[in-house]
Amino acid sequence: MGGDHGPGVTVPACIDFLSGHPDVELLLAGQPEALRLELERRGALAEARLTVVPAAEVVGMDEDVRTAIRTKKHSSMRVAIDLVKQGRAQACVSAGNTGALMGTAKFVLKTLPGIDRPAICAVLPTRKGQVYALDLGANADCTAEHLVQFAIMGSTLVKAMEGTPNPTVGLLNIGSEEIKGNEVVKKAGELLRASPLNFHGNVEGDDIYEGTTDVVVCDGFAGNVALKTSEGLARMLGDFLKEEYSRTLLSRLAALVSWPVIRRFRRRVDHRRYNGAALLGLRGIVVKSHGSADRLAFATALARADNEVRHGLLARIGEEIARLNAAMPSKEPG
Amino acid sequence: MGGDHGPGVTVPACIDFLSGHPDVELLLAGQPEALRLELERRGALAEARLTVVPAAEVVGMDEDVRTAIRTKKHSSMRVAIDLVKQGRAQACVSAGNTGALMGTAKFVLKTLPGIDRPAICAVLPTRKGQVYALDLGANADCTAEHLVQFAIMGSTLVKAMEGTPNPTVGLLNIGSEEIKGNEVVKKAGELLRASPLNFHGNVEGDDIYEGTTDVVVCDGFAGNVALKTSEGLARMLGDFLKEEYSRTLLSRLAALVSWPVIRRFRRRVDHRRYNGAALLGLRGIVVKSHGSADRLAFATALARADNEVRHGLLARIGEEIARLNAAMPSKEPG
Repeated sequence: MGGDHGPGVTVPACIDFLSGHPDVELLLAGQPEALRLELERRGALAEARLTVVPAAEVVGMDEDVRTAIRTKKHSSMRVAIDLVKQGRAQACVSAGNTGALMGTAKFVLKTLPGIDRPAICAVLPTRKGQVYALDLGANADCTAEHLVQFAIMGSTLVKAMEGTPNPTVGLLNIGSEEIKGNEVVKKAGELLRASPLNFHGNVEGDDIYEGTTDVVVCDGFAGNVALKTSEGLARMLGDFLKEEYSRTLLSRLAALVSWPVIRRFRRRVDHRRYNGAALLGLRGIVVKSHGSADRLAFATALARADNEVRHGLLARIGEEIARLNAAMPSKEPG
Repeated sequence: MGGDHGPGVTVPACIDFLSGHPDVELLLAGQPEALRLELERRGALAEARLTVVPAAEVVGMDEDVRTAIRTKKHSSMRVAIDLVKQGRAQACVSAGNTGALMGTAKFVLKTLPGIDRPAICAVLPTRKGQVYALDLGANADCTAEHLVQFAIMGSTLVKAMEGTPNPTVGLLNIGSEEIKGNEVVKKAGELLRASPLNFHGNVEGDDIYEGTTDVVVCDGFAGNVALKTSEGLARMLGDFLKEEYSRTLLSRLAALVSWPVIRRFRRRVDHRRYNGAALLGLRGIVVKSHGSADRLAFATALARADNEVRHGLLARIGEEIARLNAAMPSKEPG
């Protein structure tokens, strides 16, 4: 039900996704009338692999997280996460309120052993391909130990999803030297250097898009600032370019001639192709789609969740945490 | 002497700047031979308004800040700041090592009364014009009180430089609601709401480029992440566009036809036109140019320093702090 556009976008995206994934079934948690209407309109009401699971309520995009978790036990979001908890679904995908999704998922599913805080991990395009960045907003205040857990989860995600044998991990900081940064980051750097992870060292904001490392780790405050700042800048630059191309008759002609170039460029950095952030560290797979996702973007988020299930992500994170915790230098030497 | 390019860029930029500012004199602190050679090459050796002030050493771009401050008492950077301290110069502009510049300036000039920590404030382009953002990297760990001081300084800078009577101030956060963010930001929000500043409330990363407020306040960690991430993204997008335009014969033709459009677009977001970050909160005007600044960019930084002097920035910050501190609710009520 969620996101800025509701079933008008999510239902057709589900239909698109199913046509490319013949062995998957989708459960649509939400208000049955709205969902059935949309399915009927798309001619998919009789599709056996699309089942509506009724939910009486919806969590609003701006709703208070605590209220949503405590009072809305029949929200579409809660029903969808309950399906994962009950084992009726292997993953949950939502375009709804991020805070409510994370809060509900944590409350219902609980965290994996060895993980204190789940984190939001998204894929961003880089010069060299792509980077997995986390946390992007779930944890505004983090300890050094939390950052290390994020590094383990991010590294495991890249291993599982990309097949990279030993992903490099960068610690987001404000300088490359070890002495740089705030106290938490400095301590996290020490812990990461002592860990068996393939720790590259500190990276700076521009390293995200340089593709310096496979994983970039940061607290949810810095990560969210980096993500939102990027979104704002990309939007502004795109709109400025559009304005300049439509300014005069000559520039509109130039736009026409440039159309194939601009299309290739846009495809290369199309955020819809990167949609779907993993909520990592939970005892269940949950993927958050951008609230403003369109049909293509929401289908990408569904494919990402499907991929995480196929690659046995949960078991792999569990094993990796156990393995790395055993290999980490003990916290209280002597 | 500083920056990635040295006197080969700074000297011609000084000559350009002087031609547009007939009442200004420049003192060039640095290695006399290198500076004189460059002046001679530019035919400006006899320019009365360009005086070389000899400095035996140079602070390296990657040099340790503490070593630079303690041991390099004859560095060009130290000599330039000493000139401000002695009243022989009204401002110092440097393209050198940011940490060393801030550390040396703080050590030599000291902070203004009521300011605990100086901050780095830069101007960024937005959809609506421009925004002053601080701190961009001087203070990785900040208290709520520091953020309030940054807000006062940023607001005063906009008042002085842009003539905006009552600049709006946004607090960089990861959500617009008051309950969002880390502990420091939540407390800073409370203090700012109680202050006589024109506080807009929380802003998110994308609000920087939306131009939602005249000033954006954050700690140096988040600010530096936002700035560097923006630099990296803009560079990547620019290079991707260039690559697509040079891919085929047809796309190169499109580039040719689009040239006036692309030139207008680039001019609109040209970071060189925004070069020169103010080191605010010191008892002297210090402007930091980007290390990679070219001739146009360094001349912009010189013009910014000149403007700050002309607008009596130091006195105005001092007055504003006294005025706002008097108007702030007392910290210990009762």
